[in-house]
Amino acid sequence: MNFRHEINGEKLVIAIAQDFKTNKVLMTAYMNKEAFEKTLKTKKAHYWSTSRKKVWMKGETSGNIQKVREMYVDCDRDAVLLKVEQKGGACHTGHYSCFYRKIDMNNMKMKSVEKQLFDPKEVYGGTKNENSA
Amino acid sequence: MNFRHEINGEKLVIAIAQDFKTNKVLMTAYMNKEAFEKTLKTKKAHYWSTSRKKVWMKGETSGNIQKVREMYVDCDRDAVLLKVEQKGGACHTGHYSCFYRKIDMNNMKMKSVEKQLFDPKEVYGGTKNENSA
Repeated sequence: MNFRHEINGEKLVIAIAQDFKTNKVLMTAYMNKEAFEKTLKTKKAHYWSTSRKKVWMKGETSGNIQKVREMYVDCDRDAVLLKVEQKGGACHTGHYSCFYRKIDMNNMKMKSVEKQLFDPKEVYGGTKNENSA
Repeated sequence: MNFRHEINGEKLVIAIAQDFKTNKVLMTAYMNKEAFEKTLKTKKAHYWSTSRKKVWMKGETSGNIQKVREMYVDCDRDAVLLKVEQKGGACHTGHYSCFYRKIDMNNMKMKSVEKQLFDPKEVYGGTKNENSA
């Protein structure tokens, strides 16, 4: 892997999580070497939080883990694609995918095109950080 | 949009291109504000090259443009998902997707799982840069 994306001194690859069955794109985040290796070892998605500057397991707070079924690497080895089984929803807003809003390309207005699956307050309490989902 | 990913002083969002019909993930790259606005205006995908430090239109060398049919934004507005019609192949290696290699999660070996659609030498000549595809 080529951890070439350097943000605040941390060397990273881009990771994209995609639903194993439907191919819906669920979220994107970064991985450093440790997160990448933990993902391989545990087969549960781990990411690097650029705001909290630590490795986190997706679902560590919410229980909405991502079981990794397949992994792909891109041409220049600086991005990985995870095909996952997503428990609950991927997004800390309660949606299945973080990409739940469509942009009207003519006027830049955004509108939600997915229903909310769960109430984030119930799942995360009042201390939710988008990088600890 | 929240252009919060700062790489070499440029403020960026992550962009993911996905096949409009099959939902296959084709590639990921960054957009700065100019690339984002050009994409909206022209409905052809534009990205920011972190190596060449300039905006480029996907397909400007190869002709393999991405016609953007739909755009989605993620929860914290620092990533966009483009649903595109991909002309030819997305990858400068001649594959339809840049994620043409699968990682064996047990031994980290990579193997190509997609056939090559075109000969990159014929399309790009000898001067190919992965960020000018």
